[in-house]
Amino acid sequence: MYKFVMPEVIFGSGSIRQAGESCARLGAKRILIVTDEGVMNAGWAELVEQSCRASGLSSILFSGVSVNPKEDEAEACARAYIENECDALIGVGGGSVIDIAKSAALLATNGGHVRDYEGVDRITYPLPPLVMLPTTAGSGSEVSQFSVIVDVNRKKKMTIVSKSLVPDIALVDPDVLSTKSPHLTASTGLDVLAHAIESFVSVAATPLTDVHAKNALTLSARYLRPSVASRYNKEAKEQMAMASLHAGLAFSNAILGAVHAMSHTIGGRYPLLHGDINAVLLPHVMEFNLIAAPQKFKEIAFLMGEDVRALSDTEAGEKAIQFVRKLASDIGAPLTLSEMGFKEESIPIVSETSLSDACMITNPRDITAEEVAALLRQAL
Amino acid sequence: MYKFVMPEVIFGSGSIRQAGESCARLGAKRILIVTDEGVMNAGWAELVEQSCRASGLSSILFSGVSVNPKEDEAEACARAYIENECDALIGVGGGSVIDIAKSAALLATNGGHVRDYEGVDRITYPLPPLVMLPTTAGSGSEVSQFSVIVDVNRKKKMTIVSKSLVPDIALVDPDVLSTKSPHLTASTGLDVLAHAIESFVSVAATPLTDVHAKNALTLSARYLRPSVASRYNKEAKEQMAMASLHAGLAFSNAILGAVHAMSHTIGGRYPLLHGDINAVLLPHVMEFNLIAAPQKFKEIAFLMGEDVRALSDTEAGEKAIQFVRKLASDIGAPLTLSEMGFKEESIPIVSETSLSDACMITNPRDITAEEVAALLRQAL
Repeated sequence: MYKFVMPEVIFGSGSIRQAGESCARLGAKRILIVTDEGVMNAGWAELVEQSCRASGLSSILFSGVSVNPKEDEAEACARAYIENECDALIGVGGGSVIDIAKSAALLATNGGHVRDYEGVDRITYPLPPLVMLPTTAGSGSEVSQFSVIVDVNRKKKMTIVSKSLVPDIALVDPDVLSTKSPHLTASTGLDVLAHAIESFVSVAATPLTDVHAKNALTLSARYLRPSVASRYNKEAKEQMAMASLHAGLAFSNAILGAVHAMSHTIGGRYPLLHGDINAVLLPHVMEFNLIAAPQKFKEIAFLMGEDVRALSDTEAGEKAIQFVRKLASDIGAPLTLSEMGFKEESIPIVSETSLSDACMITNPRDITAEEVAALLRQAL
Repeated sequence: MYKFVMPEVIFGSGSIRQAGESCARLGAKRILIVTDEGVMNAGWAELVEQSCRASGLSSILFSGVSVNPKEDEAEACARAYIENECDALIGVGGGSVIDIAKSAALLATNGGHVRDYEGVDRITYPLPPLVMLPTTAGSGSEVSQFSVIVDVNRKKKMTIVSKSLVPDIALVDPDVLSTKSPHLTASTGLDVLAHAIESFVSVAATPLTDVHAKNALTLSARYLRPSVASRYNKEAKEQMAMASLHAGLAFSNAILGAVHAMSHTIGGRYPLLHGDINAVLLPHVMEFNLIAAPQKFKEIAFLMGEDVRALSDTEAGEKAIQFVRKLASDIGAPLTLSEMGFKEESIPIVSETSLSDACMITNPRDITAEEVAALLRQAL
């Protein structure tokens, strides 16, 4: 027996203009628009403001969200929501923005600190209406029951998991992907691939999550390269937006694995892009996990377009790992942790901390701190 | 740009025991359990009552639902809800039961008559919490934004379409399918196939609905025969429950076509099983629709397991139609309208009335009353 949850989704070119009406449908009058500098400069936050005005709603802008966002940002955002007497939130941005909007909504009605809610199902009161518009493809946070926030004191990312964090409406507009840099497109796209692969081999995978994981895999294997190659390739943007959506639905309900557990820990200590860290770790973790689910790794290779007919499950799984390495290299993703500034002396503490991340529980192969350390050394 | 909505789904053996807790999670205290005689005799309604008690909820039973249920049944059900001061509804049954539970919920908070809400998006106020447990695989109504109710005066089925009719939680428990007769299994299973095919070729189909339609097609093509063959084949029951769920998600968001438009009309005049009527009409409507979407019909044949590599789109589409005829014949479904008691003299009025059914709008080929009449004559 298993559960599957997802928000209402509005998908397609121009759905950003549904932002105001979406809030109005949820009964809201005064909206906190959560965003960051990059998204403001690209003009997307202004479009959302206009859409709110057009639907007769007032709005306040909160743009104080950084990469790998911290607890105090969620608290500041919650204060902005309360002090301005808002009654709904729109997050317009990447995973950081959406995760802050969710955690601020959580604090606004439940009080306390983000760390009080770390783990699974610790939220008591309903959240205010949440509309999310992702500007990367992507974090999948616009459909997921996760919010990931850095605890500065413990130097780690906390994962909060609850059905209450599933937004009410996700507006997925591929047009907003056109302002992303090639580096950000590559980094967030490899995060999509990591979501698809980790949720597909997760011990919590179900036939319903597999449907979405498989679609995400097929689409990102086919469209990530052309999406990085040209910001004007509309088909590639649309298909990567769809891949991100499917991957988000898969991991929201099947959870993830060791790549994300380790990446959350590293992201809590180093100011690195989540997708870049994942890109480096993914092939190493796939090698480690291969013996846990060889048939599923064969299916991954098949979905990536590899000819696996004459191969054993393990041989086909190796093909999938090669595919990931080649893809990352083709789109200019970092290939080692050290080139990003990760220091060898962090390995012991990162290994130890990673074990307690919520995503580690669903990794298909049991793992010790020593094994995590060995993977980090391979990836150095 | 398109929308996709679905309820929370709990899938798997034993999920019937989640009925009480599901209502409790939605804040309910006093539940109206909507069901029918057949489901009561099979013992499923009692299991739901027990589950409510175990969660500390009181419950009232309403079992006055017939096949092709009528407006006065929805009104009686709404009265039972109001008079007993209930605060949530559980529907335990086939499409008739679930549609009555939905329409009763609609009347309970919006007042008036079911006919006031016929058509698309005519509901003003939110409905009470709705938990649905389908005992057939099936109507898909447990996840859909539809309720279909007979207007006795106009002798037609009214289709009410609104996001408000999407239940809060769908409990899909394949174990409850074990008490269905082979005839009901065949009839409701062919309805699943009709949902999958009609939503896949619908003019409102989207990449998100296609994912579900394709899964429904593949599963029902493979598992309907063994599911009819044995009530103890657990795998077949589980896969047909999954097929029904996917088909429901597809048609809820992509709507249907001429098969359902005609079947609704016939079902408003003749006390016949919806799935039996669909089974007879489906191949004829596929023949008619083939020129509208030959590529999609080729894909249907491929998903059914046919070798279509050397065939043109149209040739492959013909294979899909043959597949449906063979499947219906293999599982003992009726093959003509006249063997079910449908009279030729009904053809003019049924043709005329079918044109105004909400499902006709999304049929992939434009259709006139004369063409509907010709299809009915073919199917006689």
